[in-house]
Amino acid sequence: MDRRNFLQRSAALAALPLIPSLANAGARGAAKTSGLSSQTITVNGDRLNGWLAAFDRIGRTPTGINRVAYSEGDLAGRAFTLDLFKQSGLSPVIDAAGNIVARVPGSNPALKPIVIGSHVDSVTDGGNFDGPVGSFGAIEVARTLAERRMQLAHPLDVVVWQNEEGGTYGSRLWAGLYSEADLDKVARSGKTIREGIGLIGGDVAKLASVRRKEGDVACYLELHIEQGGLLEKASKKIGVVQGIVGLRWFEITITGFSNHAGATPMDQRQDAMLAAARFTVAVNDAIRRVPGRQVATVGRVNVTPNTTNVIPGQVVLTVDLRDIEQATIERFTQQFEQLGREIGEATGTQFKFARLTDSKPALADPRVMDWVQQSADTLKFTHQRMPSGAGHDAQEMSHLGPMGMIFVPSVGGISHSPREFSHAADITNGANVLLHAVIAADKSLR
Amino acid sequence: MDRRNFLQRSAALAALPLIPSLANAGARGAAKTSGLSSQTITVNGDRLNGWLAAFDRIGRTPTGINRVAYSEGDLAGRAFTLDLFKQSGLSPVIDAAGNIVARVPGSNPALKPIVIGSHVDSVTDGGNFDGPVGSFGAIEVARTLAERRMQLAHPLDVVVWQNEEGGTYGSRLWAGLYSEADLDKVARSGKTIREGIGLIGGDVAKLASVRRKEGDVACYLELHIEQGGLLEKASKKIGVVQGIVGLRWFEITITGFSNHAGATPMDQRQDAMLAAARFTVAVNDAIRRVPGRQVATVGRVNVTPNTTNVIPGQVVLTVDLRDIEQATIERFTQQFEQLGREIGEATGTQFKFARLTDSKPALADPRVMDWVQQSADTLKFTHQRMPSGAGHDAQEMSHLGPMGMIFVPSVGGISHSPREFSHAADITNGANVLLHAVIAADKSLR
Repeated sequence: MDRRNFLQRSAALAALPLIPSLANAGARGAAKTSGLSSQTITVNGDRLNGWLAAFDRIGRTPTGINRVAYSEGDLAGRAFTLDLFKQSGLSPVIDAAGNIVARVPGSNPALKPIVIGSHVDSVTDGGNFDGPVGSFGAIEVARTLAERRMQLAHPLDVVVWQNEEGGTYGSRLWAGLYSEADLDKVARSGKTIREGIGLIGGDVAKLASVRRKEGDVACYLELHIEQGGLLEKASKKIGVVQGIVGLRWFEITITGFSNHAGATPMDQRQDAMLAAARFTVAVNDAIRRVPGRQVATVGRVNVTPNTTNVIPGQVVLTVDLRDIEQATIERFTQQFEQLGREIGEATGTQFKFARLTDSKPALADPRVMDWVQQSADTLKFTHQRMPSGAGHDAQEMSHLGPMGMIFVPSVGGISHSPREFSHAADITNGANVLLHAVIAADKSLR
Repeated sequence: MDRRNFLQRSAALAALPLIPSLANAGARGAAKTSGLSSQTITVNGDRLNGWLAAFDRIGRTPTGINRVAYSEGDLAGRAFTLDLFKQSGLSPVIDAAGNIVARVPGSNPALKPIVIGSHVDSVTDGGNFDGPVGSFGAIEVARTLAERRMQLAHPLDVVVWQNEEGGTYGSRLWAGLYSEADLDKVARSGKTIREGIGLIGGDVAKLASVRRKEGDVACYLELHIEQGGLLEKASKKIGVVQGIVGLRWFEITITGFSNHAGATPMDQRQDAMLAAARFTVAVNDAIRRVPGRQVATVGRVNVTPNTTNVIPGQVVLTVDLRDIEQATIERFTQQFEQLGREIGEATGTQFKFARLTDSKPALADPRVMDWVQQSADTLKFTHQRMPSGAGHDAQEMSHLGPMGMIFVPSVGGISHSPREFSHAADITNGANVLLHAVIAADKSLR
């Protein structure tokens, strides 16, 4: 079947009224949140983890999960996700930005929505947990509330953001944090953002319709795997996220001179790969030389002509630089540019710096951190406060209202890898904390 | 027109008797070489350089000449070359190895042939001089002899070797220096050697027909651009090549661990790109630390997954190592392997070394060097003896008979680059030295 037609049909189907699947609803029956004995409510962890297990087959390749935004794998993953929304009694629509959104009405229509969700796109050769845990966790939370016939005072928006891994596009489009030029950038799939939005059922001509302003969101909560090894090392079950580090992506073009690898004496070379190697080592040394949690990574390296017997004439590489302090990012930016000048001079090459992405540190709201922490306490899960080294849609949502995140442990601290893994029990714990934090937010914010 | 049919038709045409184009023949008329006043004979340099200028359009792309073996550009270059043979009164055939070969009969059929030639395939994004100068130079020498009605005592074989840049395949097939597995290797064009040989009109089932043994060749002479800057720096017109350096190509697979570029602390990484960078720097340092003309180049680097926000889990890179002394190659091989172990240990990665190509140093025959040098003296060209840092088909031909090479200057020492250039006058000089060296060899060896 042509996927495009399938998606369009799915979107059309989504507009039809659907009967919520309440077969597993608890015996307590309908209840207003005001009368909740919230300690006793829990999500259906087996169901949530069953969805994740089924999802693991989508985009699976011998080298990992490949659901990069707008690829065949992403389209298949979104189709699966749309079905989950519908199975769960939700009414998803594709907004103009290409995000999948379903609103559960609240009892007080005057209140702004509580928004929960994550993404289902992946990096190249990634895993099945980064994104889907929070996306399916949010669906499960909404389903659990419906099954318990619990209506919040606030509307509850369950959102699956599009193209998180390529630069949190779905949430940036909500927050208006993009330029027209951003829409023409080429995503990992080879398609432009503009083309991708059309492909997944969005409409770039109507992007104004998704635009929110500060205060339009009562609260944003996102469940996610930690993607680092801190929780596992500390034997904590829940990470109460303090904020998301700022991020700057450099694309650096190093121009030397292609020449014969046998006939050109070592002292007559302008070897772009040697310059790239020295720079990669120097960036690593600089980052590690000073205390702190700052990180920098050379992740993409393209060599020209990339032939065994030719001295490379050009290398294009990227540096991914992150820290919770913007001042640290600025300081290392200057240092990297200085290293480029020095190494260029020493190797007879030229370094040209461009910035692909620039996002400032985004701090979680102290109230949201408290609700998350109290929920973990209520459910008797150990926890710790921690920054997020990874970027998330939550960073964009922090511009629209109070934001918080819930982390669950990643085995071995591994993510963006086929070996990314989180235990089912930890995922269930995280979804339960999300459920209780949503209820707490709903009570506190009305 | 389908190129394959075109090549087959060209090969068929080549079997027909052709009338030599002798319109430009000198007034001296027919002469036996025994009665030559060889000092007065010169090639038609304008014609030779005109061929090279016309050839510059074939395989030309915005990033350089692209006639990698078995590509469209290579096929077009070979078709052009076949036409040159025929225009010049030669009768080319495609041998089973895919080489273009034309024999000019000698007056003494008992003698083994003198072989002259070079190649017309290029590297990726290369230039127009590496190969064509010696190929067309050899055709021009044969044409000049025919125009002067000078018949050598020896048969003269003019050869354009196939796939020199991918590992001197055409000449290795003559010398039997290959394995069945070599035929299944994938060339730069994406085709296997086996497929490539079929595509260019060879026949892998009949490779035994091209096999020569030591002594089957009276002498091999190849004209080539220097591809380095020694002649230009020393203001010499002719390089008398002492031998070709030995070459070893390593393909090194560095396995680390893919992980999130933001969430993974610097001290918990197994970054294959950092390891590759350290290794690249260390190889360069090791090679430059000791005196000598040895060279090593990291020319090809492929990173997995090659994404900005993922710590690279694997890097495959190549090292091209060359020296005129085999002992030096062995010593650096051990040193590189040791560096791999040390850097692997320091970075939590594993280095796996494989060898793609291994060719021993090949020394020129002292007699051939003397004929080249005497020819340069006769023609009043300055000259110097020098090793060749680049590999050539001459190295394989050294197994079949006495070998020598003639170098002409490369402007700026540049080759394997779109900026590769040699002056027309220098190319003409080189072809004249080739002509006179062939005549000297013919006299001395009969």
